[in-house]
Amino acid sequence: MRELNLLMDFYELTMANGYFVTGKEHTEAVFDVFFRSVPDDGGYAIFAGLEQVIAYLEKLSFNEEELAYLRSKKIFDERFLKYLQNFTFSCDVYSMKEGTPIFPNEPIMVIKGPIIECQLIETMVLLTINHQSLIATKASRIVHAAQGRAVLEFGARRAHGYDASIFGARAAYIAGAVGTSNTYADYQYQIPALGTMAHAFIQSFENEYDAFKAYANTYPNNCVLLVDTYHTLKSGVPNAIKIHEDILKPLGKSLKGIRLDSGDLAYLSKQARIMLDEAGLVDTTITVSNSLDEFLIRDLISQGAKIDAFGVGERLVTAKSESVFGGVFKLVAIEENGKLEPKIKLSDNPVKTTLPGFKQVYRFFQEGIAKADVITLFDELIDASKPYLLFDPIYPFKKQWIENYQVKPLLHPIYKQGKLVYNLPTVHDIRTYRKVALECIYIEVRRLENPHGYYVDYSKDLYDLKQALIERYQK
Amino acid sequence: MRELNLLMDFYELTMANGYFVTGKEHTEAVFDVFFRSVPDDGGYAIFAGLEQVIAYLEKLSFNEEELAYLRSKKIFDERFLKYLQNFTFSCDVYSMKEGTPIFPNEPIMVIKGPIIECQLIETMVLLTINHQSLIATKASRIVHAAQGRAVLEFGARRAHGYDASIFGARAAYIAGAVGTSNTYADYQYQIPALGTMAHAFIQSFENEYDAFKAYANTYPNNCVLLVDTYHTLKSGVPNAIKIHEDILKPLGKSLKGIRLDSGDLAYLSKQARIMLDEAGLVDTTITVSNSLDEFLIRDLISQGAKIDAFGVGERLVTAKSESVFGGVFKLVAIEENGKLEPKIKLSDNPVKTTLPGFKQVYRFFQEGIAKADVITLFDELIDASKPYLLFDPIYPFKKQWIENYQVKPLLHPIYKQGKLVYNLPTVHDIRTYRKVALECIYIEVRRLENPHGYYVDYSKDLYDLKQALIERYQK
Repeated sequence: MRELNLLMDFYELTMANGYFVTGKEHTEAVFDVFFRSVPDDGGYAIFAGLEQVIAYLEKLSFNEEELAYLRSKKIFDERFLKYLQNFTFSCDVYSMKEGTPIFPNEPIMVIKGPIIECQLIETMVLLTINHQSLIATKASRIVHAAQGRAVLEFGARRAHGYDASIFGARAAYIAGAVGTSNTYADYQYQIPALGTMAHAFIQSFENEYDAFKAYANTYPNNCVLLVDTYHTLKSGVPNAIKIHEDILKPLGKSLKGIRLDSGDLAYLSKQARIMLDEAGLVDTTITVSNSLDEFLIRDLISQGAKIDAFGVGERLVTAKSESVFGGVFKLVAIEENGKLEPKIKLSDNPVKTTLPGFKQVYRFFQEGIAKADVITLFDELIDASKPYLLFDPIYPFKKQWIENYQVKPLLHPIYKQGKLVYNLPTVHDIRTYRKVALECIYIEVRRLENPHGYYVDYSKDLYDLKQALIERYQK
Repeated sequence: MRELNLLMDFYELTMANGYFVTGKEHTEAVFDVFFRSVPDDGGYAIFAGLEQVIAYLEKLSFNEEELAYLRSKKIFDERFLKYLQNFTFSCDVYSMKEGTPIFPNEPIMVIKGPIIECQLIETMVLLTINHQSLIATKASRIVHAAQGRAVLEFGARRAHGYDASIFGARAAYIAGAVGTSNTYADYQYQIPALGTMAHAFIQSFENEYDAFKAYANTYPNNCVLLVDTYHTLKSGVPNAIKIHEDILKPLGKSLKGIRLDSGDLAYLSKQARIMLDEAGLVDTTITVSNSLDEFLIRDLISQGAKIDAFGVGERLVTAKSESVFGGVFKLVAIEENGKLEPKIKLSDNPVKTTLPGFKQVYRFFQEGIAKADVITLFDELIDASKPYLLFDPIYPFKKQWIENYQVKPLLHPIYKQGKLVYNLPTVHDIRTYRKVALECIYIEVRRLENPHGYYVDYSKDLYDLKQALIERYQK
């Protein structure tokens, strides 16, 4: 990670300086990261971005140039600047693992430590998690819609800047895309890069056949031809078949695939499949692209389109249907008289009332299926040998005892007093973990529209704490 | 700019290697960058991102580690890798200036040089321009809606990655935002950073008054208080007024402003204004934030809300209403037998047929108002002392002679044979240039909904060339 130490909202610095000059620099606090609703009214989100949060925290410090910039603002106390000069991250961090299916209102990351440090990292933590979770969630929907067919992330040119293209490719891969068009994402983050040719390559030759021939001679082992530059069915597909006969077959090779980037993809893919099959090219794949998303993919499949792989660009990499993942960073406890006191922020809007205290999240499973998540106080233990009462925190009369369950804590220690205590998995491991974890979620929760709501409950102790704080504040 | 040499679609490398092994590495070509429609059905877009395209081109080269990565793919010719090792950018680049109002289907940037080089930079050029033009265009709409009130870019935490937050802030500033919450954007790109406090700061004190007091004592010259943590009208505003009386006034200072981040902003701002005015704080400003966009701002103003500044976050920085700017990169001419031949790509969809040849764009003005843009062949000269025939390229019978006009070329030389020949303006200069250039565009073209279409015409020579190529291909 490059030097992004000053990538923070300016108010984090004015607040931090304020904490410092009012003697609060050692005051401990706990902040939760959570989100309130799933984009696209989906049933779940996929958590991503932890690796980049860690990369940021591992480097966070302030160099002379940055300090000189801050000093030039003439509003920061010299002792505060000295503090920044000697800055060392000392918080505890707990987080869900990347690839975990996550649900509204449960903490997905918890930061515990001096309030001044928590506050300084707010923007970078949110920015990182919001972006990658947004794209992973969108990509997961698209992969779901493709029903086992390959999804390729092709969006770099429409991404919101360089990081969006790179980490968007990473998030899409975690969520099940098989690769990306972005070479840098492969080079630096081991996301498999893919791609063959653009229309300009075809146009740069005298004719389509010559262009295909040049390409086949250059890449006989991986010859995927773009067939829609002139006329897909009258020129592109026949020329591709001819190239197989004239160039590839004599070399003992075969045409690997064709790509369609325009026109009626349902009709063209079916006709192209017939033509390829009649030429004996039953293993030649058909890849399509052109402003696809989960709904167009579902529609193509329902029409019987003969498509092996979907290249998905702008609508994935910008999460076009809903481009915001609304993760927030809220104070839930603060040290008072040497003791961590839970805090609540009330709101006229009940769903915006925060959940107080330092907390853990448990996922309950029965026969491999996730039944509910339960948010508890951090130190609560759940004895899985005993029945457990699940109840709805909004409608507490909705309750049920659960028995014969397994339970797993979802928030794992990442930092202890500023020291990294987590072994980072590879992106491939994360992708596998996501696949397994997502298969534990009811298919009804995973469907694209009107998903079944997943239960996110509170433990009795947490529920009582919240009620007590509400009553105390209302007095 | 950091090392992003491999930020390219993988197919650019497979094509480039293909050009190389088929002996086309010296073949000259011309590529246009243009877009086909304005996001949100707007009447114009704002061009941005040129400075970052230049920063990229100035650094573009391939180091040993990158070459080793490419070699590991086992598909690239060693002579091609050697070519990359010695890569020097040698193209001509013409571009609109940043801040220029731009319109669909006109070239906004033109790259002319060896096809292999043009192709290698495609993704980075598009990514950079698409992102910043998207955000500048959205921000311009928001600034328009605010009718002279300040717009502050507050979106870092919801941006699509780090670059999106930084360059989003830059693009918003170019388009008229007065500043950003993003400190890094100020530190590295001189976009004024702004901000005061979050709810957590208030919550970290015993009560709201104490929090305000600590803040006022720390920042007596720039005391803006967030008044909605507990109860805006019963607690926040009264405490803010009390702080003015108790702390600021005795220091000879005044309460600079208050900020509202929740609730009914129309009602609360009007009530808060009355309370502030009654306390004599007529110069204390009211800033509001909370998922704003151009339509909510228009609505608040139409309700008579008393607001001096709008903090705009996620809906600006992700261009939520339409998160894609569809700039494309199309071959328009290629060297054949030592001569640059115009090329056209036909499409079943007439609007997707490309505009052939190496071109220039002229903007025609009368009395300071832009009347039309005319796309010409690059070498055409327009003699402004003579009448000029404007005609619609889709409906050529729609025509009119224009007299007493001024005309300005919009594509300026940026690179000549790989050498930078452009003096980069500061971001503040760009912002001023944008303001002046935008005021030349009819207000009817600038309105938010159902804008009047701006004329983008072709010169007679260009029109004839396009028709001739279409006829030649159709034979």
